Amino acid sequence: MLSFESDYIKGAHPKVLEALVQTNMEVLPGYGSDSYCERAAQKIKDACGKPEAEVFFLVGGTQTNQTVISTMLENYEGVVAAQTGHVSTHEAGAIEYTGHKVLPLPEEHGKIKAADLQNLMELFYGDGNHEHMVFPGMVYISHPTEYGTLYSKAELQAIHTVCRNYDIPLFVDGARLGYGLASRNTDVTLKDLASLCDVFYIGGTKVGALCGEAVVFTGNRVPKHFLTQVKQHGALLAKGRLLGVQFDALFTDDLYMQISRHAIEMADQLKSIFREKGYRFYLESPTNQQFIILENGKMKELEELVRFSFWEAYDEHHTVVRFATSWSTTDEELEELKKIL
Amino acid sequence: MLSFESDYIKGAHPKVLEALVQTNMEVLPGYGSDSYCERAAQKIKDACGKPEAEVFFLVGGTQTNQTVISTMLENYEGVVAAQTGHVSTHEAGAIEYTGHKVLPLPEEHGKIKAADLQNLMELFYGDGNHEHMVFPGMVYISHPTEYGTLYSKAELQAIHTVCRNYDIPLFVDGARLGYGLASRNTDVTLKDLASLCDVFYIGGTKVGALCGEAVVFTGNRVPKHFLTQVKQHGALLAKGRLLGVQFDALFTDDLYMQISRHAIEMADQLKSIFREKGYRFYLESPTNQQFIILENGKMKELEELVRFSFWEAYDEHHTVVRFATSWSTTDEELEELKKIL
Amino acid sequence: MLSFESDYIKGAHPKVLEALVQTNMEVLPGYGSDSYCERAAQKIKDACGKPEAEVFFLVGGTQTNQTVISTMLENYEGVVAAQTGHVSTHEAGAIEYTGHKVLPLPEEHGKIKAADLQNLMELFYGDGNHEHMVFPGMVYISHPTEYGTLYSKAELQAIHTVCRNYDIPLFVDGARLGYGLASRNTDVTLKDLASLCDVFYIGGTKVGALCGEAVVFTGNRVPKHFLTQVKQHGALLAKGRLLGVQFDALFTDDLYMQISRHAIEMADQLKSIFREKGYRFYLESPTNQQFIILENGKMKELEELVRFSFWEAYDEHHTVVRFATSWSTTDEELEELKKIL
Amino acid sequence: MLSFESDYIKGAHPKVLEALVQTNMEVLPGYGSDSYCERAAQKIKDACGKPEAEVFFLVGGTQTNQTVISTMLENYEGVVAAQTGHVSTHEAGAIEYTGHKVLPLPEEHGKIKAADLQNLMELFYGDGNHEHMVFPGMVYISHPTEYGTLYSKAELQAIHTVCRNYDIPLFVDGARLGYGLASRNTDVTLKDLASLCDVFYIGGTKVGALCGEAVVFTGNRVPKHFLTQVKQHGALLAKGRLLGVQFDALFTDDLYMQISRHAIEMADQLKSIFREKGYRFYLESPTNQQFIILENGKMKELEELVRFSFWEAYDEHHTVVRFATSWSTTDEELEELKKIL
Repeated sequence: MLSFESDYIKGAHPKVLEALVQTNMEVLPGYGSDSYCERAAQKIKDACGKPEAEVFFLVGGTQTNQTVISTMLENYEGVVAAQTGHVSTHEAGAIEYTGHKVLPLPEEHGKIKAADLQNLMELFYGDGNHEHMVFPGMVYISHPTEYGTLYSKAELQAIHTVCRNYDIPLFVDGARLGYGLASRNTDVTLKDLASLCDVFYIGGTKVGALCGEAVVFTGNRVPKHFLTQVKQHGALLAKGRLLGVQFDALFTDDLYMQISRHAIEMADQLKSIFREKGYRFYLESPTNQQFIILENGKMKELEELVRFSFWEAYDEHHTVVRFATSWSTTDEELEELKKIL
Repeated sequence: MLSFESDYIKGAHPKVLEALVQTNMEVLPGYGSDSYCERAAQKIKDACGKPEAEVFFLVGGTQTNQTVISTMLENYEGVVAAQTGHVSTHEAGAIEYTGHKVLPLPEEHGKIKAADLQNLMELFYGDGNHEHMVFPGMVYISHPTEYGTLYSKAELQAIHTVCRNYDIPLFVDGARLGYGLASRNTDVTLKDLASLCDVFYIGGTKVGALCGEAVVFTGNRVPKHFLTQVKQHGALLAKGRLLGVQFDALFTDDLYMQISRHAIEMADQLKSIFREKGYRFYLESPTNQQFIILENGKMKELEELVRFSFWEAYDEHHTVVRFATSWSTTDEELEELKKIL
Repeated sequence: MLSFESDYIKGAHPKVLEALVQTNMEVLPGYGSDSYCERAAQKIKDACGKPEAEVFFLVGGTQTNQTVISTMLENYEGVVAAQTGHVSTHEAGAIEYTGHKVLPLPEEHGKIKAADLQNLMELFYGDGNHEHMVFPGMVYISHPTEYGTLYSKAELQAIHTVCRNYDIPLFVDGARLGYGLASRNTDVTLKDLASLCDVFYIGGTKVGALCGEAVVFTGNRVPKHFLTQVKQHGALLAKGRLLGVQFDALFTDDLYMQISRHAIEMADQLKSIFREKGYRFYLESPTNQQFIILENGKMKELEELVRFSFWEAYDEHHTVVRFATSWSTTDEELEELKKIL
Repeated sequence: MLSFESDYIKGAHPKVLEALVQTNMEVLPGYGSDSYCERAAQKIKDACGKPEAEVFFLVGGTQTNQTVISTMLENYEGVVAAQTGHVSTHEAGAIEYTGHKVLPLPEEHGKIKAADLQNLMELFYGDGNHEHMVFPGMVYISHPTEYGTLYSKAELQAIHTVCRNYDIPLFVDGARLGYGLASRNTDVTLKDLASLCDVFYIGGTKVGALCGEAVVFTGNRVPKHFLTQVKQHGALLAKGRLLGVQFDALFTDDLYMQISRHAIEMADQLKSIFREKGYRFYLESPTNQQFIILENGKMKELEELVRFSFWEAYDEHHTVVRFATSWSTTDEELEELKKIL
């Protein structure tokens, strides 16, 4: 059945898969010490304009959030995140499992505001009892957010400034980073991102890889013995090549951005189709995830013909649903969707 | 360079890779709910002769050990394991990271004895202070062990009996299970294993897959909401198909056992070569890992020509090293090794 | 200086101290197995009308919350609590440190509503993604709350009913329980409480003891090997007698309630004094904690003459402060306060 | 019944109790910020000859071990301890509960050797796989040990040197420190100890207090925001005065050492009695704990007349038992014991 259920419904981009096939019989050392990991890391550092960065490859998004956050926080610190942030809601308590609180911040369409962050910091340090409280030790944002929205460069800059002032790292969850960078409505480049945060990751799983997220520590805040800590989290792949080869392919000939741009074009067409047919959008998303408000009867009907994701109840009679495009979305699929609508 | 460094130096078995290529563009749901995961699980249950079993797919060995052990233990319990067990030594404290002690048991060539286990249990419950101690709540063994050795059916039966008597689960780490089942010196079948332990896993990473371990809960001790707990450990793959497709291929037309038998044949030839050349074995291993005692000067020489693993110091002048065969070892490689030696 | 800073500014009630002095040279076994602990437990079970209850003595409030919550939750569960609950805010992340999320619920003056709880449960189980979320596994309320307010019997009954329907335990933090039971504005007795929750504690530290909280498991939900888990939390006293003797004294001749009633009388007088002098109350508290809104200049003035607690900013020019009475508040102290105001 | 079961069978030393009585009605601030805590800390720093030290008061031994170790270790580190160390055996896994492995070292009568420690460190850093292993990040010793034995100054110096060379802290569990310092067979003073380790604690519970352990960070390795971390462990007393007043009393007029010397004198007499009566000692203990080997029939007989502790089985027919003296042991009690034997 036709599906816009998510951006991970098909396997890998053909060129990524091809790279795995090509390198399959090469003899390589384990645990990420192979030449492909090295080469991919170098390409990523180049793309980020950060020769001093350190790059590590992990397998999945929740794993990456858990490993990065728990290795960067002190015991007495928590991570500040939007109330709707992935770490706050849909990771089954993976952050708390490592002993740290997620400190929720108000959000709008998935985005936090520097002013709210500043306010939280001031309230904390102004509170006479703050030694009995969890210290805000890190800021987590997602870009694009869980609602497909994007921070502007100015917004990132402002959040970055608060973090600097309080000397806490800024971590950007880039599970769908490509779709953010390729959006027509962004002024944030990969280099901007790399200069405005302390650590971020470049999502592979949702942008053309079978699995894999590339963690980039942009400066001097790399956790000590990170490899050992990755192992301790059960997150170290024996065949690290699986990640290195894929990211090497994604960062060869601009494939990562090509893939991403394709998904954005498909999303633009998808938006036009919904708009033409008179559907209501829940919010204006400039990336590959689109949120539509459906009347519940209509939703039931559509479910028979096309797959999409339940997002949340809108009101008694309406539901917010998500349609996602990806590297693998085709013109034919959009054509079919158009007919269905 | 010629390499016998480990059993994960190449990619996937061609048929496994082929399956990934063939299914790449299929639209499938995420998180292990796809038809390939389902089919692979069914084939595994059939092979185990356990229709009532529950099968889950995780990515790597340490991750599997960590997730299985921490979800099966009560807070106040620890896991009993050989002092040389992987969980005791080479997982960077992944078990302790989840709050549980690894209770060490003496071992011989990686194997524990039922009598020692019985003794530990009796000492514990006989100790007037045992309420101030970590309760032994589970037994972990590896088969083959970290030294390539195997338990006999009678030995497994005896350990199983102690576990039953004390009502604690027996967990078998089968990261290299295929190589154990395919050994010429074993009377343990997959069905035996499935009937003698409460949970075990069928290693994929080291037996022909790019990654992946199939966890089999053989009876009624499945942790509650295991999927949620897998997520909480950061161990849930969005593209669960990556694991389902591979295990489906491995359990089609007996591929898993074919691969394993090939590695055993190669290991037998490798043993002959070393024996002919007068090398000394550290122990008699019936599986794909062979441990050789090298004089240190000789070791330095060999290192220039072939890759192998440092295992441990034997004495001041000698070192134990490991040579591993796998599904991917070829006659040519053995021929080359022969020449070198 | 005159102080209404908290209800733990003096040592123990003279009768409690007297009991410690009287029993000091008796030879008693350790770890809570002494006759005083036993006797105190029996008196508490009698007072609760719960012969089947199990009673344990811990040292402090945060320790008790941490130990009870972490031993009653499954790994994948979190505890539901008011956003202002002590476990949510002022325990430095003690709950998260044990791996569990605190799931916040809206509150009014520290109290949650059964309807909000029901709503949270329905939203959770109605969410198609709830297997990727933290399961609500327990409800935590404080009685009196952090704002001195009390649940009515009907309100407790309603919360109890939701918990029963979803089969999750209800835990009542009674750090100041005496002051709640002794309030003139409550219809909740100790027996009511014991029949409406699965576990609660009777606060000693703030109600006349040097330290100590008596945990009461009212029915059949006692965590397995609770003593061992208390030890594992570092919460087991070698000289458990310190707690047993104190609680034995507190539950002899109705001392606990006498102490509590005294504090309530003092609080009533304190309220009258503030009211007469025209001060504004932040909320109507029926217990020993009173929250007054002070103009900031006035606050500075008063601080020179009497100690009280900063609570929170009210607006730019006003602050909410807390005045607490206790077993040790005297008429003379109130007289002095009157003069100061 | 006559009891030598432990050194915590009676309440507090009369002078300690007297101090609690005297100060009971003073108004004091909470959480260890009172003048008694401050004064006691100053006296302890003076006694240690360490003006730069930082002193904190915790409630019990396991709690102190857990809090100190977990706040000083990095995530990827474990604590090295004797196989018989309290943290290894009798704390119900309290260290592992915080995520850290206890790395066992061989011992003799409870003592580790600098050479074994050096060996462990060399083996670790010499192991090519050490990045997959738990890093030894701290050394824990007890003085006196669990067997009543003592390190000589030279032995401590040697352990200290290994720790310095590898830049890891040395932690001394001094739950019974007084009895070690007051031994006739020691050349280790409090000042020596303070200059040879990074952190240690002065046990109160077993040396005359109702509860309480004074943690001394001797130099610049104080964990960041230690108070907050104490709170996070549930280890912060609201009425911190309970600890401050007791330690102030213990460190006034040399009371701590007086108490300790008394116990040692009593132990010497107790040893003479056993020796005269022809009993066999399990080992030569220079402190207040004495270990006697009893024939099992004899043991049963004695149990009817005097309380002592089961320690461990010696052989099929004999048992090691412990007799402990303390500040509260009297000549009369020894006389009675003599008659019984």
